[in-house]
Amino acid sequence: MTKIGVGILGFGTVGAGVAHGLLANRDILRERTGLDIELRKIADLDISTDRGVALPPGVLTADAMRVIHDPTVQVVVELIGGTGVAKTFVCEALTAGKPVVTANKKLLAEYGAEIFALAASHNTDIYFGASVGGGIPVIRSLRDGLVGTKIETVYGILNGTCNYILTAMEQEGAPFDAVLKKAQELGFAEANPTLDVDGFDTLHKAAILAALAFGFSPDIHTLPCRGIRGTVEAQDILRAREMGYRVKLLAIIKNTPDGLELRVEPALVPAASMLGSVSGVFNAAMVKSDMDDWTLFYGRGAGRLPTAATVVGDIAEVARSLAAGTCRAVTMPKASAPVALKPLGDAVSSNYVRLSLKDAPGSLAATTSVFSKHGVSIRSAVQHGAADGFASVVLLTHDVRRADMLQALEEIRTLPCAGGEPVCLSIEEPGQ
Amino acid sequence: MTKIGVGILGFGTVGAGVAHGLLANRDILRERTGLDIELRKIADLDISTDRGVALPPGVLTADAMRVIHDPTVQVVVELIGGTGVAKTFVCEALTAGKPVVTANKKLLAEYGAEIFALAASHNTDIYFGASVGGGIPVIRSLRDGLVGTKIETVYGILNGTCNYILTAMEQEGAPFDAVLKKAQELGFAEANPTLDVDGFDTLHKAAILAALAFGFSPDIHTLPCRGIRGTVEAQDILRAREMGYRVKLLAIIKNTPDGLELRVEPALVPAASMLGSVSGVFNAAMVKSDMDDWTLFYGRGAGRLPTAATVVGDIAEVARSLAAGTCRAVTMPKASAPVALKPLGDAVSSNYVRLSLKDAPGSLAATTSVFSKHGVSIRSAVQHGAADGFASVVLLTHDVRRADMLQALEEIRTLPCAGGEPVCLSIEEPGQ
Repeated sequence: MTKIGVGILGFGTVGAGVAHGLLANRDILRERTGLDIELRKIADLDISTDRGVALPPGVLTADAMRVIHDPTVQVVVELIGGTGVAKTFVCEALTAGKPVVTANKKLLAEYGAEIFALAASHNTDIYFGASVGGGIPVIRSLRDGLVGTKIETVYGILNGTCNYILTAMEQEGAPFDAVLKKAQELGFAEANPTLDVDGFDTLHKAAILAALAFGFSPDIHTLPCRGIRGTVEAQDILRAREMGYRVKLLAIIKNTPDGLELRVEPALVPAASMLGSVSGVFNAAMVKSDMDDWTLFYGRGAGRLPTAATVVGDIAEVARSLAAGTCRAVTMPKASAPVALKPLGDAVSSNYVRLSLKDAPGSLAATTSVFSKHGVSIRSAVQHGAADGFASVVLLTHDVRRADMLQALEEIRTLPCAGGEPVCLSIEEPGQ
Repeated sequence: MTKIGVGILGFGTVGAGVAHGLLANRDILRERTGLDIELRKIADLDISTDRGVALPPGVLTADAMRVIHDPTVQVVVELIGGTGVAKTFVCEALTAGKPVVTANKKLLAEYGAEIFALAASHNTDIYFGASVGGGIPVIRSLRDGLVGTKIETVYGILNGTCNYILTAMEQEGAPFDAVLKKAQELGFAEANPTLDVDGFDTLHKAAILAALAFGFSPDIHTLPCRGIRGTVEAQDILRAREMGYRVKLLAIIKNTPDGLELRVEPALVPAASMLGSVSGVFNAAMVKSDMDDWTLFYGRGAGRLPTAATVVGDIAEVARSLAAGTCRAVTMPKASAPVALKPLGDAVSSNYVRLSLKDAPGSLAATTSVFSKHGVSIRSAVQHGAADGFASVVLLTHDVRRADMLQALEEIRTLPCAGGEPVCLSIEEPGQ
């Protein structure tokens, strides 16, 4: 039986999960691939902490270069994360002609073009199935199953921390800060939660999905990105629920005749829909293509073993290619024509709007006349109880250009009847 | 650019969809695979009917053998269906060393072992991604993404006709016969609906999933299989909904310490769960493995373009392998030890039970004493209005062996207080 040697860089949470998977499921990998996939080396600066995985002697080392250049290591698995040494090691392995498996979304979102070119120039491969969606096969599906289709829309709930917080805010009616604090205590949120709650993690993942679907590398620093901090209040989540919606932090990718929409923002989705049913730390990606109707992939977007399962799946695929003496060179597709991004102001959607208006005659009339002037058409309006002389009014709009919507709200802020800041969230209805 | 020639056998619904996909998306396939995948030949007995796809001249022929042995055809796509000539042609192509892509679940469920052995002996491949779940990547996920995991449980809603009927029965409160008739008029059910409504189509698919997950070929003729005809009444669907459940026709595959459970039957799932949210003609498969937590794949399980999308994905994968000068030989895994099927009577689940009991003192006491005798523990009971002297009593049980459950019901049928036939459906709660 052909033996394929694996070297892992980074013995943290996911690294330990992959080591566990390769050791515990070596038998099932043999049955299914006909190959003996052997864990040969693991490099980590810390070689003393117990990670709960019993390694064979001689496997653990503090020297990553020794792992990369070990002649019995044929596949290099990068699980260090970030764009520092991880980038150095990935480039070193690819330059040595060794295929790399990684779960490093930040590295790919920021340096993807460079790294894919390096892999191609050394006739080797980089696999990154776990970089988006952890245990969910969304990358594999875009790359393989949907390879012959033109992608039209992708919605992603891609950050477990945000989805946990939004779910808890709905279930407990609690404010963001309190729920975040609890999530931090439970280990569902980092001490510095910026990457998650301000949307950047989701944006990194959205960039990778867009690259796979449309064959280009977006500059993530120019993409619209709103997280769930300072944008979503518990009362909006409860109002949304009353109207049959849930609030989710969405990666939104839409191919339209006048350009590609690519952004991250909190939005309302129908509560009874598949996307609306994704709760807690679970993630999902929903894809519509010209041939397939809506498909959805759901599961744990993070975590030691789910992420490791996907990494091991990538390792098995690389091993099959190596055993067949080939490099499949499945790197990023390249669009034949430049991909134009659509300005955010041109995005069209219906919207949830919450206004605080003076509880006095004429307030609503003044407001709706501004909406009307900017072409914002209201499909429903509910006034909720007044407090301190201000009433909370929740409106749902019909489809409207984002720029028109924002101009209308800007003008409403200056009306004499206006109270606090207006809240506006788009409504996305992917159908079944 | 390397050119890969494709020949299609069968120009029906899916065949026409695949032809459309290969022609319309040849550009995107070039971008993503670096290969020029060319539709060379299509064989069908009927070469005159317009299928709405404009074919290049000379592509359509009535002679399947000419397609298989055309030296410019490197991939043979079988979309005839059934186990007659389809089997002959698949074997002919494999024997000629040409990889085959098929969506033929019946062929694989009945002759899988023979066909996979034939492919292996000629060092070529058979791809069957569209045989289960149409546009849903469940086969690909079991084969690739989850390859390094031990599968524990698979739940499948794999028949769009049944799910459409069950959804309509719930939404309209209408009886099975009326909904079936309407489904037939709308083209969602065949004139002879046996294969769908009696569960056999789901069983074929379950057998393929079990083969992929556990490396053995079950004899489908010996597997427990109940459909939705004569087993589920509208009142049970409505009672289930009142208690927070939906009724779905499930493929159930569970690996337990005392053997593999493999069956098809209608069962209750939580209405608010992902599985419970799958409505209408949509399908889903939910998988739990030792490493990945629950994952779910959802989409259209049938239909011209969704099924074709998966077939084209398989064609692209074969083309990549051919271009790399290799055969990946990803056939069925083989279990290293025999797989034991668990007798149905040993399956353990909680249950929904509806009894018709004489509306008289002592009826419920007599019944519950029988349950108690057989170790059936009741977790809730609701008595509904009586008619003609009989009351409808709905019970939910705690976990119980199927054999004990059925013995209790058998005994209750003979009680003097018993009215019509008891109804019993298992409850499956896959968690998130």
